[in-house]
Amino acid sequence: MVTSVLIVYAHQSSSSFNAAVKDVAVKELRSLGFKVTVSDLYAMGFKATATREDILAELKSPENFRYGEEMEEAWRAQTLSDDIKEEHKKVLEADLIIFQFPMYWFSVPAIMKGWFDRVLTGGFAFSLKNMYDNGIFKEKKAMLSFSTGASQSMFRPDGVNGDMNVALWPLQNGVLHFCGFQVLAPQIFWSPAHSPEAVRAAMLEAWGLRLKTLLSECPLCFASSILFDLSFQGKFSLRPDVKQELEAQDYGLTTGHHLGKPLPPDNQLCAPGGAHGHP
Amino acid sequence: MVTSVLIVYAHQSSSSFNAAVKDVAVKELRSLGFKVTVSDLYAMGFKATATREDILAELKSPENFRYGEEMEEAWRAQTLSDDIKEEHKKVLEADLIIFQFPMYWFSVPAIMKGWFDRVLTGGFAFSLKNMYDNGIFKEKKAMLSFSTGASQSMFRPDGVNGDMNVALWPLQNGVLHFCGFQVLAPQIFWSPAHSPEAVRAAMLEAWGLRLKTLLSECPLCFASSILFDLSFQGKFSLRPDVKQELEAQDYGLTTGHHLGKPLPPDNQLCAPGGAHGHP
Repeated sequence: MVTSVLIVYAHQSSSSFNAAVKDVAVKELRSLGFKVTVSDLYAMGFKATATREDILAELKSPENFRYGEEMEEAWRAQTLSDDIKEEHKKVLEADLIIFQFPMYWFSVPAIMKGWFDRVLTGGFAFSLKNMYDNGIFKEKKAMLSFSTGASQSMFRPDGVNGDMNVALWPLQNGVLHFCGFQVLAPQIFWSPAHSPEAVRAAMLEAWGLRLKTLLSECPLCFASSILFDLSFQGKFSLRPDVKQELEAQDYGLTTGHHLGKPLPPDNQLCAPGGAHGHP
Repeated sequence: MVTSVLIVYAHQSSSSFNAAVKDVAVKELRSLGFKVTVSDLYAMGFKATATREDILAELKSPENFRYGEEMEEAWRAQTLSDDIKEEHKKVLEADLIIFQFPMYWFSVPAIMKGWFDRVLTGGFAFSLKNMYDNGIFKEKKAMLSFSTGASQSMFRPDGVNGDMNVALWPLQNGVLHFCGFQVLAPQIFWSPAHSPEAVRAAMLEAWGLRLKTLLSECPLCFASSILFDLSFQGKFSLRPDVKQELEAQDYGLTTGHHLGKPLPPDNQLCAPGGAHGHP
């Protein structure tokens, strides 16, 4: 089976640094024999907004339109709009999805948020039974690759913007890991617009090198689903025995089990196959 | 001066719970004598995507389009598109902005992310000199008001989705506080779609009550800008003396100063006017 990579790419200009990063990935991954598909969102005129037009059928509850429920229904009935069906096909085929974008407001640009909102349809991408490491896409990998305006020091734990890991939590945990993806460490291009040409070239070269072994990297570690009682009775919360065990340790419970603080090397808490994947 | 409130509202259906929440706010705030303006994003057909069309003039660098830079230039030259100019006027007039939305993927729907991306233009909403508690909108207040699909227990620190405060960090800190807004505690409607009618009614009633005194609430506490050396030499990071002081205390440095863990009651670290504002 040929390895398949989908690059979901969001930059307006084909002469941008983000375009160059995307081009390096396409070239390098193809040279490794992978099949590479690009969803160039701006060029496609990708619709960002979640509306009734995403469903090509009568609504179940037209008097009280609830996007998520109607979309799941339409996915089952195969009445989703063609652009969403196209993206679904690409996702199903992909072994790895790379999201390539310039960071806007501590997150992805709206056009890429629209891709999450519209393409990661209930039933297709997640369900209450299939989330996190039981997630539907648990055999697939995904990662964020992005440029920043800010410098690295601003996004350090003691920087004015706070820890980048916290800024990425809603995306890496709430979107990618939620759907089951094994999340590879983010590729962060710090402030290329304010970097000399030689630094930009070095960034691209380092990215090219990383791509050669990207697929064999250990994914980031998230708290394993086995730590939680994933039922309504259990409130989808930490199991009491796990909570007790964690509270007896000297790292914080509140964010420790979620934000990837190092766990003891012999811990059993990491999701199967997971590791502290920061390169 | 009449107090002015802008509600930026993102739901597709006028019979939704979010619409009811918005309607309660409009009614209650008007009954208090406030001027209330609503930007109903879906009804306006608000453009979510950041494109060249947002600038009604020649580009500065057409060969390498960089949205942020071009927008700042266009703001100075008053050549932004009319829809953005309209939103700018509303923001300038507002004493308080309420963002009303259903949570999609641990964040705002794409159409509201597009509002952030397009309306919070560089120069107009922030600059490197004017951010956080020196931010341009430091005399204004802002808050998130949203419904979830998940239950509250899922977003507790020991819940499977992790602490809601962490999920909201990029929005509350990275967007609102970054622009200087005093951030009021979020109004969270937990899973109204799965709640009985009486519970939904009670949620709306509690919201109506909160609105009566909303403007006099203490905003959330964020790490004060005075803790940081906001210069390139200082790397926009914690001042060495502050770092030493914090490290000597028994709460964590990494997230403690940022994520609003309680500080000692006599602390001088809270931004002026700030407080631990959770009601």
